[in-house]
Amino acid sequence: MKKYSVAVVGVGMVGIEMLRVLKERNFPLGELRIFARSARDIDVDGENYAVKTITPESFKDIDIALFAGTEGEKGAAVRFAPQAIKSGAIVIDNGGDFRLRSDVPLVVPEVNPGAIKRHKGLIANPNCTTIQMVLALNEIYKRFGLEQIILSSFQAVSGAGKKAVEELWEETKEAAARRTPHAARQKINTDISSEKRGAWSVKRGAPQLAFNAIPQIGSFGEQGYTTEEWKTVKETHKIFEDSSIRITSTCVRVPVFVSHSEAIYFKTKKNTCLKEIEEVLKRSEGVVFFKDPQDFPLPLGTQGKDEVFVGRLREDPFNKDCFWLWCVSDNLRKGAALNAVQIAELICSVRGETSDKDLDAQH
Amino acid sequence: MKKYSVAVVGVGMVGIEMLRVLKERNFPLGELRIFARSARDIDVDGENYAVKTITPESFKDIDIALFAGTEGEKGAAVRFAPQAIKSGAIVIDNGGDFRLRSDVPLVVPEVNPGAIKRHKGLIANPNCTTIQMVLALNEIYKRFGLEQIILSSFQAVSGAGKKAVEELWEETKEAAARRTPHAARQKINTDISSEKRGAWSVKRGAPQLAFNAIPQIGSFGEQGYTTEEWKTVKETHKIFEDSSIRITSTCVRVPVFVSHSEAIYFKTKKNTCLKEIEEVLKRSEGVVFFKDPQDFPLPLGTQGKDEVFVGRLREDPFNKDCFWLWCVSDNLRKGAALNAVQIAELICSVRGETSDKDLDAQH
Repeated sequence: MKKYSVAVVGVGMVGIEMLRVLKERNFPLGELRIFARSARDIDVDGENYAVKTITPESFKDIDIALFAGTEGEKGAAVRFAPQAIKSGAIVIDNGGDFRLRSDVPLVVPEVNPGAIKRHKGLIANPNCTTIQMVLALNEIYKRFGLEQIILSSFQAVSGAGKKAVEELWEETKEAAARRTPHAARQKINTDISSEKRGAWSVKRGAPQLAFNAIPQIGSFGEQGYTTEEWKTVKETHKIFEDSSIRITSTCVRVPVFVSHSEAIYFKTKKNTCLKEIEEVLKRSEGVVFFKDPQDFPLPLGTQGKDEVFVGRLREDPFNKDCFWLWCVSDNLRKGAALNAVQIAELICSVRGETSDKDLDAQH
Repeated sequence: MKKYSVAVVGVGMVGIEMLRVLKERNFPLGELRIFARSARDIDVDGENYAVKTITPESFKDIDIALFAGTEGEKGAAVRFAPQAIKSGAIVIDNGGDFRLRSDVPLVVPEVNPGAIKRHKGLIANPNCTTIQMVLALNEIYKRFGLEQIILSSFQAVSGAGKKAVEELWEETKEAAARRTPHAARQKINTDISSEKRGAWSVKRGAPQLAFNAIPQIGSFGEQGYTTEEWKTVKETHKIFEDSSIRITSTCVRVPVFVSHSEAIYFKTKKNTCLKEIEEVLKRSEGVVFFKDPQDFPLPLGTQGKDEVFVGRLREDPFNKDCFWLWCVSDNLRKGAALNAVQIAELICSVRGETSDKDLDAQH
């Protein structure tokens, strides 16, 4: 069996999870190189990995470079992907910088595997919130079409990286020690000025994560929607190759460490019924569906798991062909590292079928 | 000024808040009697109150009896309201047992004050989730009508009472000590059996509140919706006296102590625009509206406040006359105690205008 040399760039929460996933899935790994801003040794689940800084020779002979760029700021791929591609690697970027470019495939392997063929050296991993929604709705879309999606998300702090996780722990400990929901630290003070009672202004910095629900992820963009909310619209349109789906969302940060939850309301194009949607969800790849309303997925139960978990499917009693579902998935796994490694596996299987020359030609 | 003798039944979180609100608002209080299952002295903000058990004479000469019945189990009003009414008191019940009865007005004073006139001795306080939604949408409904409401709620644990608040504190402390999101206690273990990976079954008891998002409030009822979700439909229909509004919701418990948040998506009947909705929200009684998307209300900032706070108003880019708003309010204040005391104030103002004889006749 052919083996592939892989580079992982970044050892934040997603990079670490990529190392785990590569190992767990017995990825046909040749050489593994790990890069980050500073060289050091790291320990992942008892295994030691050497981390190096990137030099001009770093991507030589690398087949696949996994970029674990975080969101919110520019990913490492902006700076280093051109070098990796030039060296002959195929870049899979978890960052948000290239996703909507017409020459960059945006891939969820269970949904649009064919799209990778159109790559020009870089394939983008979608946003975590989008991935689990698109996977939950994939077979429903393919069978019945989708006219409308209305999403409210309940997003874990790990989606904002290591520092946010650390912040939630610190706030939680402080609040527990003081036995007040308000942590002590001045920077996360949520007292309200008399002019703007009850409101938090983003100008004042990041609000306290613990014991709160924050309706802002990313920054504010067009029409008062956040960048995160627009991702759920534009990335879904691109993945399904269908911008006729009317999608709108409210994305909210909640004090959960790992796994995003989503209350998804959708309307199909074709006439259907609860029974048919159930049947479709039961046989959806990558989805675990719970039919009994009394069984439902929770963030705490899905951490570290690969699938997208769907429960609480029900009809809107007043609107035909409209349904709710509750969808939970580990944002670091299927929402990021796992999906990226699955894209790498797709590349391997394509390489297995075609000659390297073909691939280089596409490249 | 006429004074009114008031009884408060129940000294859980809502009962205590009623005592606070009565004091803060300078309610024209004559005698105040406080009842609960066991007699004792309690301290509220440094003031001592004597709590007694209910006897056959308890409601003699009481004008208004505020029942702070908790949800989930039958409220105290089921047992004691008949006695209070027979003694001549008007009962205001925060419990959920009588709300949908045709002979019981369901009142949010800013929305449908006129409904109290139809009472037969008992007036019901709506569910907390419903009150803040109805108040946020009140003027919009009156001006433009509402065709559809799609609600996702982010509800505080205090809505489930003192024990749930205690449970969240204990879980938080344990998790902080262990530095794992999973608290130690067996009863809140969320490990997943192999057959039902990722799912929580309600048959296993209540899931951990800390670091979780639980899409079940109340018990499961018709068509897979919970009792809480049906309340947002049926109580809203009753308060607006309009069952043509197509309402559907997903109600979720989040690790927040006080204040419910709601992502509300709505479609107006008449044609309108963002500017008009903004104008209407600005002059909505009981509502504080933040126009700038960068100012938004948070649960941590609204605890202890009386108003319903609304922000993040925006249009659905793809659907005409459809909008989102983010609505936050203290579930123990406007969602329960304050609304009940406001109903009591309405009764007083009606009594001030009419003779006691008139009121007794209605009664």
